[in-house]
Amino acid sequence: MRDVMPFGIRYAETDMMGVVHHANYLLYFEDARTHFLQQAGLPYDQIEARGFMSPVVSVDVKYGRSLRYGDEPVIETWVSCVSPFKVSYSYVVYASEQDRKENARPACSGTSVHCLVDAETFKPVSMKAAAPDLYELYRANLEEA
Amino acid sequence: MRDVMPFGIRYAETDMMGVVHHANYLLYFEDARTHFLQQAGLPYDQIEARGFMSPVVSVDVKYGRSLRYGDEPVIETWVSCVSPFKVSYSYVVYASEQDRKENARPACSGTSVHCLVDAETFKPVSMKAAAPDLYELYRANLEEA
Amino acid sequence: MRDVMPFGIRYAETDMMGVVHHANYLLYFEDARTHFLQQAGLPYDQIEARGFMSPVVSVDVKYGRSLRYGDEPVIETWVSCVSPFKVSYSYVVYASEQDRKENARPACSGTSVHCLVDAETFKPVSMKAAAPDLYELYRANLEEA
Amino acid sequence: MRDVMPFGIRYAETDMMGVVHHANYLLYFEDARTHFLQQAGLPYDQIEARGFMSPVVSVDVKYGRSLRYGDEPVIETWVSCVSPFKVSYSYVVYASEQDRKENARPACSGTSVHCLVDAETFKPVSMKAAAPDLYELYRANLEEA
Repeated sequence: MRDVMPFGIRYAETDMMGVVHHANYLLYFEDARTHFLQQAGLPYDQIEARGFMSPVVSVDVKYGRSLRYGDEPVIETWVSCVSPFKVSYSYVVYASEQDRKENARPACSGTSVHCLVDAETFKPVSMKAAAPDLYELYRANLEEA
Repeated sequence: MRDVMPFGIRYAETDMMGVVHHANYLLYFEDARTHFLQQAGLPYDQIEARGFMSPVVSVDVKYGRSLRYGDEPVIETWVSCVSPFKVSYSYVVYASEQDRKENARPACSGTSVHCLVDAETFKPVSMKAAAPDLYELYRANLEEA
Repeated sequence: MRDVMPFGIRYAETDMMGVVHHANYLLYFEDARTHFLQQAGLPYDQIEARGFMSPVVSVDVKYGRSLRYGDEPVIETWVSCVSPFKVSYSYVVYASEQDRKENARPACSGTSVHCLVDAETFKPVSMKAAAPDLYELYRANLEEA
Repeated sequence: MRDVMPFGIRYAETDMMGVVHHANYLLYFEDARTHFLQQAGLPYDQIEARGFMSPVVSVDVKYGRSLRYGDEPVIETWVSCVSPFKVSYSYVVYASEQDRKENARPACSGTSVHCLVDAETFKPVSMKAAAPDLYELYRANLEEA
């Protein structure tokens, strides 16, 4: 599954360059993960309700053309790697749905890696053992490239 | 006590108007409360460590001249009202220490009202009864106007 | 017109109290204004494209029940006051559409006042004279209370 | 030069996990660049005043132990790569100055790559040609690691 989510730009997300400040893309990535898990039928708040959390282990971002207030961007999201202890999400942000369809230069692309931890101890746990439905969801949705 | 705290402007705090986005002043107010309580000898994290939290009940802000990246603003903070269940902080932000000394037009002024709640239940408690040192600190530092 | 806009809660918008940090409500208010003007047929980016900006003159907020990640809140927005130089928006945020329908205790209510300025000089201009369509839009949508 | 800057944690920077939200580290990196250039004698606002901007081309971050409200972290910053068109900054964030001295496990480490663009056109320019003092500053402060 490649999830495609349209989103809006907040005025507060722009900076004095007149474009979206680069740190906000990490918030769009997070929104995209929330949306992905909702679409896949296992909302993230249910994972936390079971006593787990899924913190970010690492993230990398490459910036392309700038986004501006008034744009109607979309973010394409997929699971790019899974192991019992880690999952990688990949993202491409386009300035518009048309840009996405035409495979135009993206606003940004990136990857984030997440583990699963016990909410009490912050210690990593095996997704495969502790949340097998989440693990299977990731495996079933794994995409090449 | 009127606490005076210099602070910096983050690039990310500006918006496409080229000035500091208005929502960030609430963050400066929060920084100012943290600083006030540190100066007064009762850091806020100690209050939370005792099982209390001090959420914002209401806030009002009046905006004046704009702040920009590269400015060296200061925020003046004092306790403007105290009761057993509520405390009000007042703030004036100046674009520079010189502006403050000359009583120039501020960048912003505002007030926030806070209560004290039990961290487990979110129920309000009497500061006077539950955290008498905090209550006395506020009373001792109460300023007119 | 009372505009009703559903919105989501970002994980990043929560704080260590486990609820939405109070400063984020100013961002929700801003999103609500963007939505209001889109619905009314005069998107805010068109106003800026004409060489004007509409900064916040003042804002006040009263906080009620807390919002949490996973909630599906709605914000109700209307124009509560208009003059040639200033417009006031009022807002009520409910934790859910059901809460709104049942007139339950809101998460937050507030008002913000805005002027119109020349984007080059930051000097206030008369909306009535400089952007009569915007002024008429506000007048036509003015709601009591 | 390795610049070491102490900084504070805003309450608003924490999330419902009880720790600093991962996106905020990009803001600490930005603060660190501002501080680095101030210490080096060429503040960033002077670069923008000359008609240039220095946007982020890419960024990567590895997260370690979590930061919490009340911590007194430090960020160590250096220039890790320079070319006529690009500069890389590297960062390590420690939970305390003591952690830094003892080379303890960091809270985070990362790298960001920046170019220089004309503020009007957003087109990349050669730092070496357009801002030779900035280019020399980077070259003089380049650190292996």
